[in-house]
Amino acid sequence: MAKKPSIPKGTRDFSPSEIAKRNHIFKTIKRQFELFGFQPIETPSFENSETLLGKYGDEGDRLIFKILNSGDFISKVDDVTYSSKNSTSIAPKITEKALRYDLTVPFARYVVMHQNEIDFPFKRYQIQPVWRADRPQKGRFREFYQCDADIVGANSLLQEVELVQLYDGVFTELGLDGTMIKINNRKVLSGIAEVIGAQHLLIDFTVALDKLDKIGEDKVKEEMLNKGISEAAIKKATPLFSISGSAKEQLELLKVLLSDSEIGLNGINELGEIINTINAIGLKSASLQLDVTLARGLNYYTGAIFEVAPPDGVQMGSIGGGGRYDDLTGIFGLKDVSGVGISFGLDRIYLVLEELGLFPKAIDQSLQVLCLNFGEKEGLVALKLISELRQYGLKTDLYPSNAKVQKQFKYADKRNVPYVILIGEKELAANQFIVKNMRTGQQQSYSLTDSKAFVDSLQP
Amino acid sequence: MAKKPSIPKGTRDFSPSEIAKRNHIFKTIKRQFELFGFQPIETPSFENSETLLGKYGDEGDRLIFKILNSGDFISKVDDVTYSSKNSTSIAPKITEKALRYDLTVPFARYVVMHQNEIDFPFKRYQIQPVWRADRPQKGRFREFYQCDADIVGANSLLQEVELVQLYDGVFTELGLDGTMIKINNRKVLSGIAEVIGAQHLLIDFTVALDKLDKIGEDKVKEEMLNKGISEAAIKKATPLFSISGSAKEQLELLKVLLSDSEIGLNGINELGEIINTINAIGLKSASLQLDVTLARGLNYYTGAIFEVAPPDGVQMGSIGGGGRYDDLTGIFGLKDVSGVGISFGLDRIYLVLEELGLFPKAIDQSLQVLCLNFGEKEGLVALKLISELRQYGLKTDLYPSNAKVQKQFKYADKRNVPYVILIGEKELAANQFIVKNMRTGQQQSYSLTDSKAFVDSLQP
Repeated sequence: MAKKPSIPKGTRDFSPSEIAKRNHIFKTIKRQFELFGFQPIETPSFENSETLLGKYGDEGDRLIFKILNSGDFISKVDDVTYSSKNSTSIAPKITEKALRYDLTVPFARYVVMHQNEIDFPFKRYQIQPVWRADRPQKGRFREFYQCDADIVGANSLLQEVELVQLYDGVFTELGLDGTMIKINNRKVLSGIAEVIGAQHLLIDFTVALDKLDKIGEDKVKEEMLNKGISEAAIKKATPLFSISGSAKEQLELLKVLLSDSEIGLNGINELGEIINTINAIGLKSASLQLDVTLARGLNYYTGAIFEVAPPDGVQMGSIGGGGRYDDLTGIFGLKDVSGVGISFGLDRIYLVLEELGLFPKAIDQSLQVLCLNFGEKEGLVALKLISELRQYGLKTDLYPSNAKVQKQFKYADKRNVPYVILIGEKELAANQFIVKNMRTGQQQSYSLTDSKAFVDSLQP
Repeated sequence: MAKKPSIPKGTRDFSPSEIAKRNHIFKTIKRQFELFGFQPIETPSFENSETLLGKYGDEGDRLIFKILNSGDFISKVDDVTYSSKNSTSIAPKITEKALRYDLTVPFARYVVMHQNEIDFPFKRYQIQPVWRADRPQKGRFREFYQCDADIVGANSLLQEVELVQLYDGVFTELGLDGTMIKINNRKVLSGIAEVIGAQHLLIDFTVALDKLDKIGEDKVKEEMLNKGISEAAIKKATPLFSISGSAKEQLELLKVLLSDSEIGLNGINELGEIINTINAIGLKSASLQLDVTLARGLNYYTGAIFEVAPPDGVQMGSIGGGGRYDDLTGIFGLKDVSGVGISFGLDRIYLVLEELGLFPKAIDQSLQVLCLNFGEKEGLVALKLISELRQYGLKTDLYPSNAKVQKQFKYADKRNVPYVILIGEKELAANQFIVKNMRTGQQQSYSLTDSKAFVDSLQP
């Protein structure tokens, strides 16, 4: 029993100051989501297994946490399966529920189940934890929050424009200037695949192309060859190796390269419209950049693809991503509902803000006023004063015991309290309280019948 | 695949308007927690099984959701256990983690693990979901939120006083006037057990006594006899059957009844001190009432016991409860750390506020301004205006497509939007936008270069 307690690997306890910082990010994201007209929903932490399994590929299925059935779960396993001693066959017989793996599949399930109550187009946001039985490593956890905003039931490219503005809005409000919102389009990637005549090798192609900056053109080509992409195809795609310049210039180059691909040209038009509109409206602190190597979740997205990189100089992967998926709810039987959405990487944003010192200074100021405790009679008067100060919105507390004054001051120091109130015998007699400013050391007396005078003195 | 999707029994989806209402309660509770100097922590959704098992009794162990080990879990089961086909023996071999069952045990674990970083006394609050494999029924769910505030490392009764004030503060801010905070003390219950000479029957005794209002004195006595409490004991305890009046009068009666019980008198003194202090400070909207039948979580609490009943006339069980437990962290090897805490029953508070119509009126106003969409050129201008309005803090959106005006107005109606903005060809030419007040039907024009004029018109 008295064994030293621990928590499961890949999980975390959050201390008050960590929560203050996380909430700062959550609040900012929520505020912007709501300014943009998104509405919150929440779904259960666990879903029926059949809702989740088969939606994330074999690897995903393996990483889904399954919940053991309650009661005599073994009795539900038939003898043949039981004697196989095969974990893969037995698991579905002894589990019916599984922990949420992402927010997108539960959202699709929600839309289908509640389609008659929803006013489409439906702009929903969802901020909840998800769980994955991944091997824990630096920055990768088994329990972590996802923050998603999606729009379903609207096909217009204005949605994509809005989502770029939303990224810009959130990161600007967080003080994180200079983020780069990378955009691509699945149709452009399909066009490239057509042109190189290697549909099934598209992922290999983009994964290799994405390494251009890191390993150089020769190594990229070598990797492509190794993956089975023909020399002819690589030659055809050569212009992509030197694609650069403004989005407009890149789109011009792509138009030439993809001139024979209808879908490719389609994607180029979409990109052009989104980029032109954003250029006309302007962004506050982010920049929008075309990146033809961007191919996240390729099998999933059907139109725009987004990814956000932190400001230059910060060593960190993407802090957000998303895109358009044309058949979100088809897996649950509701056809032709287009969706487009983005997500924010809370843990990485946290690390970036921490690294750049962008959290507000007083963010973990959990106590503004501490009343020292000089005993029963004084304490009772202090409690009344404290009630008043809380009424005025000040986070105020009484030291819980009549301990040595030094100890009480030390506690005030540790909690980083800016104001300490003293009501001793003398003050009680004079119907006063003393406020000590812990930064300046200055003391000031106030009448116990006019606590507002102290509150007013705090106003800037 | 296209099977109609569902969610596990005992779980819930929350719609935007439900979330708005739940958040109203969460925000109020959090605000008060923070005014009282409590700090938030969060713990992982699942703990190591050994952290949770054995802490809630056999029934609790049965109700804890266990997470199936990943990978080839069967290979970890020894042959003898496997061939037993006994679920109870096999479960611990194939599960290592379990979902949080309450917030108190994880908190105790947290305090022990982080004891060197914590500044005691530690006032923590925690608002997170918990999971129980209970049979779902009206108002009882398998996933629900707990909202707990606890103080550890402080023995003074001022903590109890504060917690009563905290209940009063939260329910007053929620507009829920007339709640009754019931208080008792475990020591008084121990004293009663001593006096009736039936320590081991104390739970049976209080459970029966608690039914006094419902089933009457005779039936209560009958139940006590059935449970094995002697006639002599019942006779000795007879004064308890007619205990009533003010707290002071009840305490006087208890003093006589428990005059031979040191622990009983101790409890009476504690109750007296808390009640007197509260009487001296005053409560805003709640009343504090002594209830000697109050015995929740008897094996757990060691001092004060709290429970909050909703205002008279509302048919609902307790909406909060708590108490003092003298050895919170002993189960994890840290001795002599006293704790006292209370919790708020979110789901029941929600139902009570709903029943009494106490949620703020505009609580699910998720969109304040909708710009109608009249096509590409107009849309671009609308997007700029929308950016400005969001900058001013207005939840604003553009209808996502150039649909029929009627359809767009219908959407505005459904979303309950108070202001609709129209920028058609004519307005564009005049560099204006029209605002239609959806309540009054009135229209007003503003210059596109002065959107602030519209924002200012909304100020009360």
